[in-house]
Amino acid sequence: MGDRVRLTEEQRLDWLRLIRSDNVGPRTFRDLINHFGGARAALEALPGLARRGGASGTRIFTRDEAEAEMKAARARGIAFIALGEPDYPARLQAIDDPPPLLAVQGELAAVARPLIAIVGSRNASAVGMKFAEKLARDLGSAGYGIVSGLARGIDAAAHRASLATGTVAVLAGGHERIYPNDHVGLLDAILPQGAAVSEMPLAWEPRARDFPRRNRLISGLALGVIIVEAARRSGSLITARLAGEQGREVFAVPGSPLDPRAEGTNGLLKQGAILVTEATDVISAIEPILGRGLDLPAQEPSPDEPPLHDTEPADDDRSRIVALLGPTPATLDDLVRLSRSSPAIVRTVLLELELAGRLERHGGGSVSLV
Amino acid sequence: MGDRVRLTEEQRLDWLRLIRSDNVGPRTFRDLINHFGGARAALEALPGLARRGGASGTRIFTRDEAEAEMKAARARGIAFIALGEPDYPARLQAIDDPPPLLAVQGELAAVARPLIAIVGSRNASAVGMKFAEKLARDLGSAGYGIVSGLARGIDAAAHRASLATGTVAVLAGGHERIYPNDHVGLLDAILPQGAAVSEMPLAWEPRARDFPRRNRLISGLALGVIIVEAARRSGSLITARLAGEQGREVFAVPGSPLDPRAEGTNGLLKQGAILVTEATDVISAIEPILGRGLDLPAQEPSPDEPPLHDTEPADDDRSRIVALLGPTPATLDDLVRLSRSSPAIVRTVLLELELAGRLERHGGGSVSLV
Repeated sequence: MGDRVRLTEEQRLDWLRLIRSDNVGPRTFRDLINHFGGARAALEALPGLARRGGASGTRIFTRDEAEAEMKAARARGIAFIALGEPDYPARLQAIDDPPPLLAVQGELAAVARPLIAIVGSRNASAVGMKFAEKLARDLGSAGYGIVSGLARGIDAAAHRASLATGTVAVLAGGHERIYPNDHVGLLDAILPQGAAVSEMPLAWEPRARDFPRRNRLISGLALGVIIVEAARRSGSLITARLAGEQGREVFAVPGSPLDPRAEGTNGLLKQGAILVTEATDVISAIEPILGRGLDLPAQEPSPDEPPLHDTEPADDDRSRIVALLGPTPATLDDLVRLSRSSPAIVRTVLLELELAGRLERHGGGSVSLV
Repeated sequence: MGDRVRLTEEQRLDWLRLIRSDNVGPRTFRDLINHFGGARAALEALPGLARRGGASGTRIFTRDEAEAEMKAARARGIAFIALGEPDYPARLQAIDDPPPLLAVQGELAAVARPLIAIVGSRNASAVGMKFAEKLARDLGSAGYGIVSGLARGIDAAAHRASLATGTVAVLAGGHERIYPNDHVGLLDAILPQGAAVSEMPLAWEPRARDFPRRNRLISGLALGVIIVEAARRSGSLITARLAGEQGREVFAVPGSPLDPRAEGTNGLLKQGAILVTEATDVISAIEPILGRGLDLPAQEPSPDEPPLHDTEPADDDRSRIVALLGPTPATLDDLVRLSRSSPAIVRTVLLELELAGRLERHGGGSVSLV
């Protein structure tokens, strides 16, 4: 999965079908590929797995649906780049849960460049927007692409100021559902030198929970994330947290303690974010990283674990493991110890439960029943 | 000099005469006391020393002048507290160059309390003034006295908000020359619960260079210094630098990168100042220090150096040492090595030159000819 070869079009269709099927997210996708050796085999096993996990009718994305989405994407000039392919953004590949397929519209080269994220309040002040523009312009001139979320306020200001030098909009919905709708024109201006990126189905209408999910891609694509203005509890702070978890540099722009729009950024500075008053503050922190190699993905299966498909859980394995699960997160280690099943069997049962939509994953590899 | 006993009134007069004489600053005062064992002996030796240093007519502050200043001070309720006396502020005593006599008007207890300095732009914004008031009020309620410079803008806001809880104004001139003049009313409001402090003669009109000199007392009195608003090159940044040199905590209030009044404070934050958006940021950094003992003065003569009065420089010592001096600062070590005179002789010659007004002292104990 980590080798940089291109998929065949047949394989790409299978990947699309697998990631678009019920209860398959980026992490489950990887587990399935590792388990079955490929998307085709995983698709064939999926109904049985989900049934054993307790699901009555798990929907598998059909070949026709996948072909239709591929065709619609092609018509809009959107390419599906698969994890491991040469065009897949290297930094994004190194995060915990990279999308198996990234739908990219516009210039592929814009996504491959060194990127810096600029995000912040939708309800931004005039001064905040002006400063976001200045940063984006100066970083663009210095050779960095600007990645952001196409939102009103800071995001839009950052995109607008980097149209000529290259900017990447990461969408929370599909390419056919631009949000907010009045930024369709801005997106059209972005595409000639930049790109729009989404992991969602083309016609996906973004819901509230899709924005934090999308934010991991903004930070994942970037070398560092600059928060320009952010209230105390805001989406930009989620991006900052994800950036920290992904090992990205976090930058924050200071503001008056009496300005509620600076509460979030001043808070980040207290927690150790790098203070930014000009582009050189960012560049001097980022430049040393550019030379460095990428971190390896944190959750590749380690070689001393036996492959999952060597073992098939028996019914009493399943009932023992399910009995140990509840609404409180439990770790894989605990489940193995308490169930006295092998790690491979526990992982298989968890995969089945996940595909049945009965499992929730938490930080630190712990899981709970939904 | 470090023992906490009270001077006799006769000794206090001698101390006042010595510190008010030509070319005697706090450091020279200490050297002279160490050299001659007391102010009276130093006063007697002063004309000879200055003459040997090359001065034609060094003015010694007369006994009559000292008595007149004492009397005028008493009439205004001003007490002269000598270094080493119980009422002398302990933290100020620990700096490099504490004033031998501190003229205090108002409540002595206000100066002895744990103090925090709040300083900033004279040309402050409404938001900056409001925030300085809030900080001063909250720190006052938490039991801290507020020390500042009685200037317009941030200083005045900090004093005003802490009138009831206790605030200390450190003057750049004498007690009879309040600057700015329209803050005489503010000072009157400060005195009932607070104090005004000066090291200058009562009638001293403050000159530009007296303000940085005064700033070392603001930071020296305080456990930490908060800079609220400061342009790029401003007096508040001098106070911040002195605070750092004195081992005081330096706090800075963030502001927008597009606000020139925040350039100085944002710069301090980049250099490691503690970011302040509320009083608890200050208190949680200061509280652990309150428990700690005071640092010893850094430049007390170490016991392995022979006392200065054991040695008297010969004329060729003097000419050799003077020949080594120029406008470029030289260290004592270099002068001893190159002159092949003893450290005690070199120090005596430097003292003579200083009293003659021919020596300038720099950081790190280096000196140059004026």
